[in-house]
Amino acid sequence: MSDDNPIQVTAAVLVIGDEILSGRTKDKNIGYIAEYLTAIGIDLREVRVVPDIAEEIVGALNALRTRYTYVFTTGGIGPTHDDITADCVAAAFGVGIDVDPRARAMLLERIAEADLNEARLRMARIPFGAELIENPISKAPGFMIGNVIVMAGVPAIMQAMLDRVAPRLRTGARMLAETIEAGALPEGAYASGLAAVAARFPGVSIGSYPSVTPQGFRNQIVARGTDAARLAAARAEIEGLIARLQAEQG
Amino acid sequence: MSDDNPIQVTAAVLVIGDEILSGRTKDKNIGYIAEYLTAIGIDLREVRVVPDIAEEIVGALNALRTRYTYVFTTGGIGPTHDDITADCVAAAFGVGIDVDPRARAMLLERIAEADLNEARLRMARIPFGAELIENPISKAPGFMIGNVIVMAGVPAIMQAMLDRVAPRLRTGARMLAETIEAGALPEGAYASGLAAVAARFPGVSIGSYPSVTPQGFRNQIVARGTDAARLAAARAEIEGLIARLQAEQG
Repeated sequence: MSDDNPIQVTAAVLVIGDEILSGRTKDKNIGYIAEYLTAIGIDLREVRVVPDIAEEIVGALNALRTRYTYVFTTGGIGPTHDDITADCVAAAFGVGIDVDPRARAMLLERIAEADLNEARLRMARIPFGAELIENPISKAPGFMIGNVIVMAGVPAIMQAMLDRVAPRLRTGARMLAETIEAGALPEGAYASGLAAVAARFPGVSIGSYPSVTPQGFRNQIVARGTDAARLAAARAEIEGLIARLQAEQG
Repeated sequence: MSDDNPIQVTAAVLVIGDEILSGRTKDKNIGYIAEYLTAIGIDLREVRVVPDIAEEIVGALNALRTRYTYVFTTGGIGPTHDDITADCVAAAFGVGIDVDPRARAMLLERIAEADLNEARLRMARIPFGAELIENPISKAPGFMIGNVIVMAGVPAIMQAMLDRVAPRLRTGARMLAETIEAGALPEGAYASGLAAVAARFPGVSIGSYPSVTPQGFRNQIVARGTDAARLAAARAEIEGLIARLQAEQG
């Protein structure tokens, strides 16, 4: 792998669920998946949240799966009428869907055969050609079809599924990050110097992030890139800039 | 306003920021805005998170602003080189952008004129035709142009801007929600009964939400709609269903 042309593996996350859009449930999956993918060398490029409406889900799936290496979905794979993700994925890929014997066997590890009613069997409906993703918590599996990975919305189950599927995924150059504390030095004081550093390091992405604290604004600068040596050089320049400006202000 | 045909006011949120996609910053704005809009009668229909790349921001803006009543953006309006939201909004609307005297005056409330360097003046660059949204915390304003509302990414500032802009917005039928606790009753036990209730109440959206607790799965059913009487009737049917099934299982 050349540092000048690192392998890029990209991804999108598609969160499916009215409960996120209504604000009733606060999403905990986007941040988790973002951090997880960054750590294994997959570059998360887009996130969408859509309601439990088939045409919205299919439209978003088709927009995202043709654009990124992988699409990770969360939500909508339970037994109730509002769980329509598997059918939408089948529709997006133009394949059939039916109860999968392997998925049914997984459900029977937790549910007695007499209790395996039609609603519960919905959780074993898997698009044709998909590979299952094991669910160690409640057994109802996720699945992967083409470049789309379909996971539960419950965070603990989603996280277990991500652990299961990650070893199957191709990964690219890992994005490294360096954080430089600018403290109370205002963004407006270092913005032009920082832009000059960013211009000198085209392969390094540099951002400035203010936050409000009880003591007022505090700023952090984050430099990200796949080339450790260039990243270290950019970091050194930014640290020099901040130290110089702090000395001037002090 | 007729209950059969309530006024629908819709919205999308566009979160702009590499830091969310890398997982470094965990978004706190989506859930806040979702809950806020629901409370004032605006129906949040879609969320997207995109990186600090002009063509991605412009593309998402144009996709969303043509589809929903309002688009709320967060992030990318500071003084540093990675703050490109205002320029992207101008590009999406095909209008010019320059330092706005009203915005410059707001900055001067906090920054001495001698310190108003080029980087800080970036925060006063406003697309032509936009109305400003006051920022009581750090003065640099947000703005509204057409149906796009541009806000800061720092949660405290975003929240203050949302309070400022909300009275200017048109609102529709307020979505009411009722939560019915299903406790440890499994989703698979009530799924078919719940689907039957959902079919009888087409104007009521009914969802089932499991969560993992130390005591195992606990389920909640949420019914949402704009017609209070129908919502109450749906709630009563769901409560009857759950009580009957709990008695059977008990």
